[in-house]
Amino acid sequence: MGKPEIAKLGHVALVSTDLDQSLKFFKEVIGLEETTEIDGVHYLRAWGDFQHHTLSIEQGEDSYVKWIGWRTKTKDCVLGFKKLLQEANVVVEEFPMGSTPGIGNTIRFQLPSGHTFEFYYDVDKPEAASEYKSILKNQVYQAHRKGISPRRIDHVNIHTSTNANHTFDFLLDTLGFNLREYVKGDEGILAGWMSVTSLVHDVALVQKSALPSKARLHHLSYWLDNSQDILRAADILREQGIPFIGPGKHGISQAIYLYVMDPGSGCRVELFTGGYLIFEPDWEPIEWTRDEQLTVGNTYWGDSVQDKELNNITIEAR
Amino acid sequence: MGKPEIAKLGHVALVSTDLDQSLKFFKEVIGLEETTEIDGVHYLRAWGDFQHHTLSIEQGEDSYVKWIGWRTKTKDCVLGFKKLLQEANVVVEEFPMGSTPGIGNTIRFQLPSGHTFEFYYDVDKPEAASEYKSILKNQVYQAHRKGISPRRIDHVNIHTSTNANHTFDFLLDTLGFNLREYVKGDEGILAGWMSVTSLVHDVALVQKSALPSKARLHHLSYWLDNSQDILRAADILREQGIPFIGPGKHGISQAIYLYVMDPGSGCRVELFTGGYLIFEPDWEPIEWTRDEQLTVGNTYWGDSVQDKELNNITIEAR
Amino acid sequence: MGKPEIAKLGHVALVSTDLDQSLKFFKEVIGLEETTEIDGVHYLRAWGDFQHHTLSIEQGEDSYVKWIGWRTKTKDCVLGFKKLLQEANVVVEEFPMGSTPGIGNTIRFQLPSGHTFEFYYDVDKPEAASEYKSILKNQVYQAHRKGISPRRIDHVNIHTSTNANHTFDFLLDTLGFNLREYVKGDEGILAGWMSVTSLVHDVALVQKSALPSKARLHHLSYWLDNSQDILRAADILREQGIPFIGPGKHGISQAIYLYVMDPGSGCRVELFTGGYLIFEPDWEPIEWTRDEQLTVGNTYWGDSVQDKELNNITIEAR
Amino acid sequence: MGKPEIAKLGHVALVSTDLDQSLKFFKEVIGLEETTEIDGVHYLRAWGDFQHHTLSIEQGEDSYVKWIGWRTKTKDCVLGFKKLLQEANVVVEEFPMGSTPGIGNTIRFQLPSGHTFEFYYDVDKPEAASEYKSILKNQVYQAHRKGISPRRIDHVNIHTSTNANHTFDFLLDTLGFNLREYVKGDEGILAGWMSVTSLVHDVALVQKSALPSKARLHHLSYWLDNSQDILRAADILREQGIPFIGPGKHGISQAIYLYVMDPGSGCRVELFTGGYLIFEPDWEPIEWTRDEQLTVGNTYWGDSVQDKELNNITIEAR
Repeated sequence: MGKPEIAKLGHVALVSTDLDQSLKFFKEVIGLEETTEIDGVHYLRAWGDFQHHTLSIEQGEDSYVKWIGWRTKTKDCVLGFKKLLQEANVVVEEFPMGSTPGIGNTIRFQLPSGHTFEFYYDVDKPEAASEYKSILKNQVYQAHRKGISPRRIDHVNIHTSTNANHTFDFLLDTLGFNLREYVKGDEGILAGWMSVTSLVHDVALVQKSALPSKARLHHLSYWLDNSQDILRAADILREQGIPFIGPGKHGISQAIYLYVMDPGSGCRVELFTGGYLIFEPDWEPIEWTRDEQLTVGNTYWGDSVQDKELNNITIEAR
Repeated sequence: MGKPEIAKLGHVALVSTDLDQSLKFFKEVIGLEETTEIDGVHYLRAWGDFQHHTLSIEQGEDSYVKWIGWRTKTKDCVLGFKKLLQEANVVVEEFPMGSTPGIGNTIRFQLPSGHTFEFYYDVDKPEAASEYKSILKNQVYQAHRKGISPRRIDHVNIHTSTNANHTFDFLLDTLGFNLREYVKGDEGILAGWMSVTSLVHDVALVQKSALPSKARLHHLSYWLDNSQDILRAADILREQGIPFIGPGKHGISQAIYLYVMDPGSGCRVELFTGGYLIFEPDWEPIEWTRDEQLTVGNTYWGDSVQDKELNNITIEAR
Repeated sequence: MGKPEIAKLGHVALVSTDLDQSLKFFKEVIGLEETTEIDGVHYLRAWGDFQHHTLSIEQGEDSYVKWIGWRTKTKDCVLGFKKLLQEANVVVEEFPMGSTPGIGNTIRFQLPSGHTFEFYYDVDKPEAASEYKSILKNQVYQAHRKGISPRRIDHVNIHTSTNANHTFDFLLDTLGFNLREYVKGDEGILAGWMSVTSLVHDVALVQKSALPSKARLHHLSYWLDNSQDILRAADILREQGIPFIGPGKHGISQAIYLYVMDPGSGCRVELFTGGYLIFEPDWEPIEWTRDEQLTVGNTYWGDSVQDKELNNITIEAR
Repeated sequence: MGKPEIAKLGHVALVSTDLDQSLKFFKEVIGLEETTEIDGVHYLRAWGDFQHHTLSIEQGEDSYVKWIGWRTKTKDCVLGFKKLLQEANVVVEEFPMGSTPGIGNTIRFQLPSGHTFEFYYDVDKPEAASEYKSILKNQVYQAHRKGISPRRIDHVNIHTSTNANHTFDFLLDTLGFNLREYVKGDEGILAGWMSVTSLVHDVALVQKSALPSKARLHHLSYWLDNSQDILRAADILREQGIPFIGPGKHGISQAIYLYVMDPGSGCRVELFTGGYLIFEPDWEPIEWTRDEQLTVGNTYWGDSVQDKELNNITIEAR
């Protein structure tokens, strides 16, 4: 068998110090659907997400990300990755089917940065309850039922205070991500946008010199179909009294964005649309200097992410 | 005959120190159409403007606004205003038909703030050249031919360093504008949005303590049909290397905005959409405190107009 | 005192044979807010409507329109119209304040076509309940709370099997509407779009040779801010299994439209955006031949309103 | 080496009986950019296409598609496919680098349906001329320069009057496409949407009983970022007097569409946005019955593609 491969971002497992507020935010304001609740863990997904859940939330003493889940291309890839990781002296934990509702056999391990990744292949794809089910056979729920109503999960953005080069190497060489765009510093890559799919990034990694802990989640992202949806989201959030950054457009990734924090957990969500798809097999990573990042890359136009206190807030990833 | 009435904002007469650059900006980047050029003055209008021109530009030694033109409700209203103004000891100049191409008999006078207004009733409504003419009998030009492509002129925003109360009184009592929204300061209205139409404002007046001259134009505004058009405009302007503020949404007027300066004259243009219409005959002006203005009124969301150097730039109005 | 004037369309009073379904449609699918319910009559308005209600619905043995309400420019205009109408031998009924919740002294009368109009000046403008109230001082409710979520009422479209010329004369000469666009037939105007505001039409009147009764409502219309909102509405309606015509764009009025029928009453609603505003005081009505109407006027592009069974359905107006 | 793989749709090579009109249509109305012209062949691409061209047009005695080009995942894949095809008794022609400007070594062969496919790996990626170059390092041209201005090529839709099952087998088994959605008839698949990328389809194949020749192109498709762009495109096409079908939304693929024919060649172009991405590695093809196709699949809402003469027009593929 060849090199094991990741198919796609699966989900983020979130712990919140204020579950009620987090559920209100993700279910009513963002507008995610709840697949199920088991043992106090709420499993959520967007109307266009095809699998069991793309976000789980549970009550905790601290707010943090338990792990970031990824689906592999085949069942064998899970074992393939286990072998590969162990050969690279990475500690791998295994969990049998059923440990997490909706997900099969699982392995969990830490990136050099300290972020926990979870790999699995088998997923349940439960239908929506009949009253919310789309008449489209290729769509799970009716769209636009409530709140901001994004279509699907898109990516995660993680921060590290460790030397990011180790983690970039790990993500690119061991896990098989492709580098799509990056910011070059004197001592290597300061920020990199990487994907296994045609998206510009399934994961972005940013090195920051000072962070409250070494592994942080800057945001998880849900995708909307139209740029006007982002402006509608701004109206909704403003009326709810929830602060946000945006709308704006990144030069890097070309995403039209809005950043908002879950008032329950402090976990930031990027609502985004636009961007571009990469189908070229010989994609040459786009290099941005630090200066280009600041003038065009971070904010092509709009409400800037730079120099905002709000933009520095991250949530711990364990 | 009753009190004379204004029907609508007509046009802005602009002088530019760099006519070529101004024409490139207004015709190619903004996308206005040129009705005609006579004696070095270029007469422009948007594809949905019904009259001869809504902007004129000519070369000059300084960049400034010569006058702001308003169309009256009837021919008699021009004379009615002349009488009214003279009774109020306002100096009124008269110009016969043909002094300005496309416009009939005209009177000109100054507001207490020093801004020159021009009133007229008769206007030419020339058709578009056949190759650019819309197949819609209710639209002059084909839409979306070039550049940002707004539909029509919307309003002007003027600044004064004089005591604005005199000018507010003049605009409301003598000229018949209706106050729609305003910011209340200790000594009266600091900023007011006024209209004779169902728009929230045909003209806004703002008092500023320090200005390069007592009468200034902050911006003239063209209207686009959709909020996405504003984001498309941002892409276009960014690629042309022309700085702008926005996109954002004002609380006051509910306008979704983008502010950009003509690189030739320094005259600011607001591209905007959204907003609301006032049909209620007993509209009670919305009062905003200075504090409410700063937290919600100026920027409901988005790239803030506050604290931007770019936002303080105005152009002289003579 | 001068000629009495209408300020704006006020509301439509609707009777439904299936109140529950009508309320579900207007409140959950269209997304109107309920101001109050009194004696079985439900008073609804859109989030941007400034007055007490723009639609009332009650249970009845038949589905029909009781009347179409219009707000006058002043209190005196109500009496002015009463006098004017009586001089023209029109039967005028009077109702004291409180007969209809939220509305003051009222007169009611019939057009030559048989449609009942109601005129009043005084209106209540109740605030939204605090949890739904906008932080914008110029907006009643938070926008985008549920369903399609239009901003405000826009216009009504009425049909008659009588000779429409009498009713056109009445609307234009007696009631003071301005003709904005019309379709010319051999014996007069076949269809006319008329307004007292800057909208292209507050009311449209169409002559049809065969109708189930002489006075019919073809549709009432609510306005959305963006053309994408119309496409979002199509998704929502399709999932609800409610048939509609559109999206398309009329040449006449330039409206981007979607026509959908209330499953309870059979009353058609036009969801629309786009269009244009008329501020010119000497607007020359746009004349369309019957042929131009069929090739450009009815459908500039999109799902055509012509030759659709659904388009012929109207509701009785008493 | 493993099984050879296709990376993405590359381009369509088009011959037009009226080159001037085709160039006007594709360059001015659609708004494609011209990379170069060599020996009378014009090489075009959209502002977001990363390779040398995605469409070529040249003058001919007939209008037809010469071939449909596909880029492979590696250089070796070209040879891999050559071997694979020859083993399957498919005639393979080879062309050295430079036979087609901007493209390296090429193989060409026919599907069982008679359509010519071209495979290659090497491509030139010339920059835009400096005055049209984007300041975004991840985008070739400035966006929105002219006309409808789509971002990138998306897919092709081909028709055959032969038994489509042979061609489906060939596309899926030999060429490695994944079936994403299909319409099931009594004797197999009547229409199938297939991709090698995360798009729902890079190619669709439809079986039609009667066609002017056995291999036809129904349309090639360019992608726009927002649904409002489709409505803007409708305005532009309507004013140019070019007939089209749409706007509407397919149930199958969820595409928001507009179909328009190049007046020069008769080649149909689908302008589209929306749709969804497939990242699930175990995607189970969505099956639609013929009945479901007609009620939901073809047209979820909007101007229907069914029963339109315009929809039956296809162009020969040689």
